[in-house]
Amino acid sequence: MKELTHVTGTIEADPPRAPIIAVDAMGGDHAPAAIVEGAVRAVREHGLRVVLVGRRNEVAEILAGHDALRQVPVVHAEDSLAMHEGALASWRRPRSSAAVACRLIRRGEADALVSAGSTGGIVATSTVRLRTQAGVLRPALAVPLPTGEVPTLMVDAGANADAKPEMLVQFAHLGCAYARTAFGVRQPRVGLLTIGTEPGKGNRLVRKTAELLAAEDPELLDFHGNIEGHDLLSRKVDVVVTDGHTGNVALKTVEGTAAFAMDAVRGALTSSVAARAGALLQRRALRDLRARLDSETYGGAALLGLNGTVVISHGGSGPRGIANACRLAHDLAAGGIGEQIRRRLQTRPPTWLHRLAQSEGAAPPKEPPAER
Amino acid sequence: MKELTHVTGTIEADPPRAPIIAVDAMGGDHAPAAIVEGAVRAVREHGLRVVLVGRRNEVAEILAGHDALRQVPVVHAEDSLAMHEGALASWRRPRSSAAVACRLIRRGEADALVSAGSTGGIVATSTVRLRTQAGVLRPALAVPLPTGEVPTLMVDAGANADAKPEMLVQFAHLGCAYARTAFGVRQPRVGLLTIGTEPGKGNRLVRKTAELLAAEDPELLDFHGNIEGHDLLSRKVDVVVTDGHTGNVALKTVEGTAAFAMDAVRGALTSSVAARAGALLQRRALRDLRARLDSETYGGAALLGLNGTVVISHGGSGPRGIANACRLAHDLAAGGIGEQIRRRLQTRPPTWLHRLAQSEGAAPPKEPPAER
Repeated sequence: MKELTHVTGTIEADPPRAPIIAVDAMGGDHAPAAIVEGAVRAVREHGLRVVLVGRRNEVAEILAGHDALRQVPVVHAEDSLAMHEGALASWRRPRSSAAVACRLIRRGEADALVSAGSTGGIVATSTVRLRTQAGVLRPALAVPLPTGEVPTLMVDAGANADAKPEMLVQFAHLGCAYARTAFGVRQPRVGLLTIGTEPGKGNRLVRKTAELLAAEDPELLDFHGNIEGHDLLSRKVDVVVTDGHTGNVALKTVEGTAAFAMDAVRGALTSSVAARAGALLQRRALRDLRARLDSETYGGAALLGLNGTVVISHGGSGPRGIANACRLAHDLAAGGIGEQIRRRLQTRPPTWLHRLAQSEGAAPPKEPPAER
Repeated sequence: MKELTHVTGTIEADPPRAPIIAVDAMGGDHAPAAIVEGAVRAVREHGLRVVLVGRRNEVAEILAGHDALRQVPVVHAEDSLAMHEGALASWRRPRSSAAVACRLIRRGEADALVSAGSTGGIVATSTVRLRTQAGVLRPALAVPLPTGEVPTLMVDAGANADAKPEMLVQFAHLGCAYARTAFGVRQPRVGLLTIGTEPGKGNRLVRKTAELLAAEDPELLDFHGNIEGHDLLSRKVDVVVTDGHTGNVALKTVEGTAAFAMDAVRGALTSSVAARAGALLQRRALRDLRARLDSETYGGAALLGLNGTVVISHGGSGPRGIANACRLAHDLAAGGIGEQIRRRLQTRPPTWLHRLAQSEGAAPPKEPPAER
């Protein structure tokens, strides 16, 4: 983990103080108990600055149980999003814990949101309340795939079911900014997810996107061409670009297949007396493996391209998952991911962005881009 | 396996004789040796009627090595498709072994094609040379997922990267006909692959398809709604409907993740002395598991909707994979899958088909549908 004391004003991209993480205490299958415990762990074990947002009395009681009332401040929010609530929830619940956390970020009282609430609800709430960064067409979900030491990022993992080629090019840049900020990959390799490695393979969206990606400045975007489903876990690239429909299906297919394979292994290992004896010996080795495949290890999905860092943790997250999500949110905010995204999209020749903006009836971005 | 003697003229859907399988001897990474050996196994172990298509001398020599010159006839084809050749290959190589095999089917001298050649090349060759069945918008690849005793079928697994909702509805019917013919599932449950189980989730293609599927006669098509990536291996449905882009990515993601998990398990099992001792005891249990996840077990992908049965085996298929592909081709052809597909598409109210045919400038299907 980065030492908070290293975050100083001398690094241009860094905010002047250690980022504050607003944790949605009411989102997730095990909320609020597991969320509050995770926030406490984030403070105690990782030295992060955390504020909990939720029903004050409930949250305070759990904090008291951990003897942490004075370590973690609480901001009251009377409402919360139910786990089954989707995109429309954000309009209906302006006083939800997630909406209140976004308000803290808008006001500059926090830098990041961590929630284990429903992905649809948090994506909609934060998109509406934090707004997209200038020049960003759509925010995208970036999810680390469990490939080992340095994960491969998949962008978009589900925020945009219907995407345009120009959006996918931006997703590539968002993913690169993430890989650089959170994993320290200086020149991330980018692959486009499709159904054959030769150029020209795939559906219309992919074929057009491949052309645009190949036309990017290679100094800025290291495009390695098409990749296929079996390359997702092979560390062939650092960032996998895809639309939210394909990405979400692929992500859940990875999760489902890994669970299926682990079940099958467990079944095979206990299917005979001899195998059972062996299984006893190997429990520890398998435990290590499970941890590696465990989604909690990486903290969760980041929604990139908004005015503020948003990390959406798995709905079933326990304290460890929440603590890791806080760490990821801290690393992204402290590394100045928003500023990095701004610079990446600013440096690029804005010709196609113009075209798209015009065709959608919106005003083209100003030239030269105004300093913010 | 079905006894060939049970296939008589009394079952209306069955052809009057046991189907003849034309095996492309020249397609596949291990062609022709492994292919020829597989064909010999299909004849000897499963009692199938097989004809090999390829370079006569080469094939005959391998057959002689198996002492099978008089068991398997050979039809000469001087040319063959290279493994990297894609769709255009079919126009360029009218004398390829795959093209010659299709000609046998057109002439009524064979009923099915089995090839381990490149999927793109075989899909294009057989689509051009066998033509789609009347009323079928596009042929689709159906691939069995390794879910256990009765596999779940995924349709389309890659033949149509860009699909329309009306095509996906037909893919559902093609898949049902397959599940019924090859696996004996009387009323196959159909699921639509998307990014959330609630109605209205997914991209435009999926949302429109869900409406059309829900409007089908439930007697004819048992639609169970949306399913997600992690349901692919859970046996929740018998037929998974999706476009060729999403389906191909999901299929290869299953393969890649299963391989990754098995590697990780192997690594974990041999990572300490104690674990190594256990691994020795469990070798057999793991071998069984690997066989279950092995793509060769199910024979391969079927290209449905053409005038003739086509089974495309994995490029790396060995003799067992080819023999199983022949068995699958036999079961589909003997079960009269073409006739079943014809009846399914005939029974359906043709309103949307009309609309689509008109919008594409083609003539609408005749009413009442002519007997063929």
